[in-house]
Amino acid sequence: MNSLEVCFSPALFPYRTTGDDCIVVIVDILRATTAMCTAFYNGVKKIIPVATIEEAKECQQNGFLVAVERGGVKPDFADFGNSPIGFFPTLVKGKTIVYSTTNGTQAINTAMGCKTVVLGAFANISKLSNWLSGKNENIIILCSGWKNTFSLEDSVFAGALITRLLEKSGYTIANDAAFASLDLWNAAKENVDEYLKKASHRQRLQKLGLENEMNYCFSADTAPVIPALNSVGILMLIQ
Amino acid sequence: MNSLEVCFSPALFPYRTTGDDCIVVIVDILRATTAMCTAFYNGVKKIIPVATIEEAKECQQNGFLVAVERGGVKPDFADFGNSPIGFFPTLVKGKTIVYSTTNGTQAINTAMGCKTVVLGAFANISKLSNWLSGKNENIIILCSGWKNTFSLEDSVFAGALITRLLEKSGYTIANDAAFASLDLWNAAKENVDEYLKKASHRQRLQKLGLENEMNYCFSADTAPVIPALNSVGILMLIQ
Repeated sequence: MNSLEVCFSPALFPYRTTGDDCIVVIVDILRATTAMCTAFYNGVKKIIPVATIEEAKECQQNGFLVAVERGGVKPDFADFGNSPIGFFPTLVKGKTIVYSTTNGTQAINTAMGCKTVVLGAFANISKLSNWLSGKNENIIILCSGWKNTFSLEDSVFAGALITRLLEKSGYTIANDAAFASLDLWNAAKENVDEYLKKASHRQRLQKLGLENEMNYCFSADTAPVIPALNSVGILMLIQ
Repeated sequence: MNSLEVCFSPALFPYRTTGDDCIVVIVDILRATTAMCTAFYNGVKKIIPVATIEEAKECQQNGFLVAVERGGVKPDFADFGNSPIGFFPTLVKGKTIVYSTTNGTQAINTAMGCKTVVLGAFANISKLSNWLSGKNENIIILCSGWKNTFSLEDSVFAGALITRLLEKSGYTIANDAAFASLDLWNAAKENVDEYLKKASHRQRLQKLGLENEMNYCFSADTAPVIPALNSVGILMLIQ
């Protein structure tokens, strides 16, 4: 049996019980992992996650397209923000994008060192759960959260993914956070969009006029791809 | 309106949004805050929380009674473990106890510096919620968790306490962890003992032969007292 552990924040990742020989699924539903899956689905070839705005600017000066978000907002200099609907195929097909966000790219960096790191979102949930269940590996679902705090939408997604994996055989729940995620998904699943109206980051994005993206972020299988981190910290699709 | 924030782990306390001018409710249902409430109810006068076993030993050599627990187990030298049913009135009435546990006493130390720090458990839930609702202060519920990870029983209690406070007027939910706690309480409340059978620390205690204490730890109002930290870090009852 393989284990399923959920980590509610990058700040809790040091306290995980699953060893590094595992698959880590990074989750940032609003919006980094949703947007990155969409970008890849629309033809992006590579995403280079970077921590700071300075790094992103430097990469832009070296000719890269850059996607940057802080607190939900795209800085003026950036080519893209963190909006999944911004990555039009005509703009991104075949391109490499340097990417920096408030929470998602930090979570990706946190998990480097583990055997396999992939991105998860409602956008790729079926493709991802089918792929995971064929791998026979322990899994940690790492919720990006908001500035190291717990986020409802990431945890609800963790519960949705665990539900899919438990429907297949060979997994046991490894920690209380995974049990809680399942119950949060059960509370949300009848109407995810309605349930997540209370989520603090959704309200933050709503105030920024981004409410029209929410339904996309909570919809399943809009971008059926599996982005994974390679050995030098660059995201590429698993074929 | 006052705010209600939940913190799922001492490791997440640095990322809270509520300022230090607030009441922090420390929660360690299995078993430190349940046991401490019970000890006070049975006549203990003061509890001195200490972080290390070495400090506890030194205090014992200076004539104090000491309660110590690591991983659910009482070390041989200690006078008491972390069992709420161990603090018989005849043994503890009028006494000061030096106390050190795996998680609970660390959480208490984490919150020092905030205006008011009190202990919460099912054992004192009615008394505590009535007292809190008369105070007109922002509240952080700090779950002790297990070695900095999320614990189901502490979060379920947080939801129970929030439910009580929302029934009174004057509170708003301040973060996603508080919303999640409410939903976990809603999933658990019909049969808390049954719901928490999956909790990892309960299973740990069960393996140690302590299953008979669980029902006590999940029962409301067995020890209606409010222990609070004073300015020099000693727990005493609020009269």
